[in-house]
Amino acid sequence: MNIVLLSGGSGKRLWPLSNDVRSKQFIKIFKSKGSEYESMVQRVYHQIREVDKDAMVTIATSKAQVSAIHNQLGDHVGICVEPCRKDTFPAIALVTSYLHDIKNMSEEEVVIVCPVDPYVENNYFEELRELEKLVEREDSNLVLMGIEPTYPSEKYGYIIPIEKGKVSRVTEFKEKPDAVKAEEYISQGALWNGGVFAYKIGYVLKKAHELIEFTDYNDLYSKYDTLNKISFDYAVVEKEEKIQVMRFMGQWKDLGTWNTITEAMEEKIVGNVMVNETCENVHIINELDIPMLCMGLQDVVISASPDGILVSDKEQSSYIKPYVDQIDQQIMFAEKSWGIYRVLDVEEESLIIKVTLKPGEKMNYHSHNRRDEIWAIISGKGRTFVDGMEQSVQAGDVVTMQAGSRHMIIADTELKVIEVQLGREISIYDKQKFVPEK
Amino acid sequence: MNIVLLSGGSGKRLWPLSNDVRSKQFIKIFKSKGSEYESMVQRVYHQIREVDKDAMVTIATSKAQVSAIHNQLGDHVGICVEPCRKDTFPAIALVTSYLHDIKNMSEEEVVIVCPVDPYVENNYFEELRELEKLVEREDSNLVLMGIEPTYPSEKYGYIIPIEKGKVSRVTEFKEKPDAVKAEEYISQGALWNGGVFAYKIGYVLKKAHELIEFTDYNDLYSKYDTLNKISFDYAVVEKEEKIQVMRFMGQWKDLGTWNTITEAMEEKIVGNVMVNETCENVHIINELDIPMLCMGLQDVVISASPDGILVSDKEQSSYIKPYVDQIDQQIMFAEKSWGIYRVLDVEEESLIIKVTLKPGEKMNYHSHNRRDEIWAIISGKGRTFVDGMEQSVQAGDVVTMQAGSRHMIIADTELKVIEVQLGREISIYDKQKFVPEK
Repeated sequence: MNIVLLSGGSGKRLWPLSNDVRSKQFIKIFKSKGSEYESMVQRVYHQIREVDKDAMVTIATSKAQVSAIHNQLGDHVGICVEPCRKDTFPAIALVTSYLHDIKNMSEEEVVIVCPVDPYVENNYFEELRELEKLVEREDSNLVLMGIEPTYPSEKYGYIIPIEKGKVSRVTEFKEKPDAVKAEEYISQGALWNGGVFAYKIGYVLKKAHELIEFTDYNDLYSKYDTLNKISFDYAVVEKEEKIQVMRFMGQWKDLGTWNTITEAMEEKIVGNVMVNETCENVHIINELDIPMLCMGLQDVVISASPDGILVSDKEQSSYIKPYVDQIDQQIMFAEKSWGIYRVLDVEEESLIIKVTLKPGEKMNYHSHNRRDEIWAIISGKGRTFVDGMEQSVQAGDVVTMQAGSRHMIIADTELKVIEVQLGREISIYDKQKFVPEK
Repeated sequence: MNIVLLSGGSGKRLWPLSNDVRSKQFIKIFKSKGSEYESMVQRVYHQIREVDKDAMVTIATSKAQVSAIHNQLGDHVGICVEPCRKDTFPAIALVTSYLHDIKNMSEEEVVIVCPVDPYVENNYFEELRELEKLVEREDSNLVLMGIEPTYPSEKYGYIIPIEKGKVSRVTEFKEKPDAVKAEEYISQGALWNGGVFAYKIGYVLKKAHELIEFTDYNDLYSKYDTLNKISFDYAVVEKEEKIQVMRFMGQWKDLGTWNTITEAMEEKIVGNVMVNETCENVHIINELDIPMLCMGLQDVVISASPDGILVSDKEQSSYIKPYVDQIDQQIMFAEKSWGIYRVLDVEEESLIIKVTLKPGEKMNYHSHNRRDEIWAIISGKGRTFVDGMEQSVQAGDVVTMQAGSRHMIIADTELKVIEVQLGREISIYDKQKFVPEK
């Protein structure tokens, strides 16, 4: 199979575990057969591999996620980077031309586009093979997966099939309805739109050229920021006449909110948490290094990270987004391919950061115009380069850098560093990168 | 009036805002007429002053609290320090002999001993004058304040008076009963024992000499650690025949648990907290510098500090103590007379601390045997002394100290310092103090 995973999302609905640099698909809260926690993207990727070890998987995502994807899935996964965010039609057009022009796939090749975050069993991915076969049979240009509804949700679009069989042509699409309408659709045999699209490369390229003027992948990439934001559903799916839907009746959960994600957690408590016996139906994730004590709570989700603390009734947690939009909080924590950084203290004219570099990793060679920095090594061994001068460092060593001085650090073992930033305008944008002098 | 405030308590029932160095009476959560938050001890102290501006107030407490008391009440409040904790009889004996031998009060002087944490209006302190008068009239050796019960509490001892009038002789004392017994006592006119004792200095000195062999205050102080732990109620009150109780019918709350303390908070939210409109009867104190979002909660108290996070149903919060006893958490935060320290990061072989010194304040001149230290100044101006060498410092300066080297820092303005501690056995006990060389 040739699967494209759309990995988007600012992840505000899972605040404070997700933020602008850590989307929800990277949060490690699922326990698989082994004992390690895995993230949504890891779970889905492993499931695809189990069903089809030769599957070609390409992740369509933004630049901001590339480092997290490599960190979680390794260096060999295919990634198609969107230069900026433009909704699903431009994204699918870009990844399709990427597969055609860069990966040299033929126009006859079938692609299955899938969200990165369905919480499903392996049978879901086995069903994707059926979609592939339906596309190959050429009865239709597009085949969707329709999820058998379990309740009249107002969160999903509905697909109205002509027949009630496993595979059917589609009469109509309905945008998110109210509960009464949803009930009505379901009584007519409607299905949820699960965001899965199967098509031949040539079909989507044709649609893309109809709507966008471009020559090839590189050209499309270079003008990506000028494209209109438009969804694939609106631009293509709802206008297509030769379209089929395949009914999926297995377990399917859309883990977009705390309420749904907690249903999928095998362990109710993650982190340093004490819960007394009067708590019921409580899920807690504490990523802070301080203890949490919970008593007498019912139907509550609690999530604490260096970015903030959420305490919410589970049902209410679905309405989190507008509140999180109001929180203008510096990102306090990030997991990168090279390691971890965490903000320890924020003052008007200083910022204290703890950086943990993996063995062999390094920072870019860079400088700042408007801040001085101090590194205090607290564990490990490595080498610093300041204005071209190399120095071996280990726990207890201190290196000071004036504004303008070029610097980097290489970890020979795991290396932990306290970085003190000092200046009036401390900003992540005040960074100039250089090629090391040697 | 001559009032002794007993300021004890490890404060575990108000975890995580109270800890071994910050007892509950020092948490600033009360808004008074002004706009500043004040603590229990500040509130009580100001109330006494309002009722009797010439009142002599002495606080009987442990060494650990002296700095916090001066910090909150200023340098002029009287403090009688207990060398160690020995329950209320030794504490009252010590402070009484302190008033007699050190403050030269006569044996005829009336002393009113009061807990430091009743949440009351000024009329409570006005009533203390009546206690004083009753003692002076010499109808009895001891006069107690009995609180008119509002419900059959199992938390308090009960005083059974002979008559139902304002002042009565006492028939009997009852230890904390069950609710059924409590109901029975109340129907007989019983009062809660509010922990207030009024007596003449000579009376308690006589009782003290009967039970403890000592000559004077200094002698008692020096043998304090050998005394038995015993309560004043048990050692004196319950054995006394010439005893009266005065009924207090005003507002009185014992703010010993989160449940009761939230009832006294004028503002339901303290700190960086967002609460949606579906929350009801929720009290939140967030002392962390990260945002908190609460949704759909009812009857819950949340309290977050650098020591930990409590999320509890209000009623359940009364049962916190055994859980907190299980938490073996380093103290992450302390407010001292010289300023504030906060632990930012804890690793196996390092500890990162942020120290904020008030202008003019300083650390002791000291050294450590088993750790190196680094100071990075992040704001303000001051002077460091390392092995006798003075150096002016300001933001951006770094000072390194090897194990064994003697050091101190003086703040000329408010001074903020990141202290990096490095070593295998970092402990607060690894500290040797010295007199500065100059």
